[in-house]
Amino acid sequence: MQPESTIPAMTYTISVNVMPLKDLLDPQGKAVLNGLGNLGLKGVSDVRIGKRITLQIDAESEEAARALAEEAAKKLLANPVMEYFEIG
Amino acid sequence: MQPESTIPAMTYTISVNVMPLKDLLDPQGKAVLNGLGNLGLKGVSDVRIGKRITLQIDAESEEAARALAEEAAKKLLANPVMEYFEIG
Repeated sequence: MQPESTIPAMTYTISVNVMPLKDLLDPQGKAVLNGLGNLGLKGVSDVRIGKRITLQIDAESEEAARALAEEAAKKLLANPVMEYFEIG
Repeated sequence: MQPESTIPAMTYTISVNVMPLKDLLDPQGKAVLNGLGNLGLKGVSDVRIGKRITLQIDAESEEAARALAEEAAKKLLANPVMEYFEIG
């Protein structure tokens, strides 16, 4: 048998935050802002609501896992017309 | 006039991550997992999708702002039957 030449993959947990673009209205956030006021929670001046996507990625390094997460965000997770994303 | 005795409030940005409980199925995450496979992105073994809520909070300290965010999460943002939350 040939010796195993590949580095064994580890599983990394990488999170992608997908948020509405800052220039766009966020009606869901506005509704939550009103709800907080109705509950008597004072001091909140703005609320923005986006998605948090946690990926379990098998990769040879954390850099490779983060690169895959970024590719996933660009290709599927975020809609650049309305959203931006951050890794981590 | 009386001198101003309160500490001037600053605005803090506090994020709350609300995720589906680990024991629950996440059909939206499963759909994204299948979508990533269809796009040819290999190596992702699990996807969980939750919410990320960013609050702008006027408070006298970051600790006070985080406490208010936690209260908001408990009272409104997270449904403990199906979700857990983390500040930050």
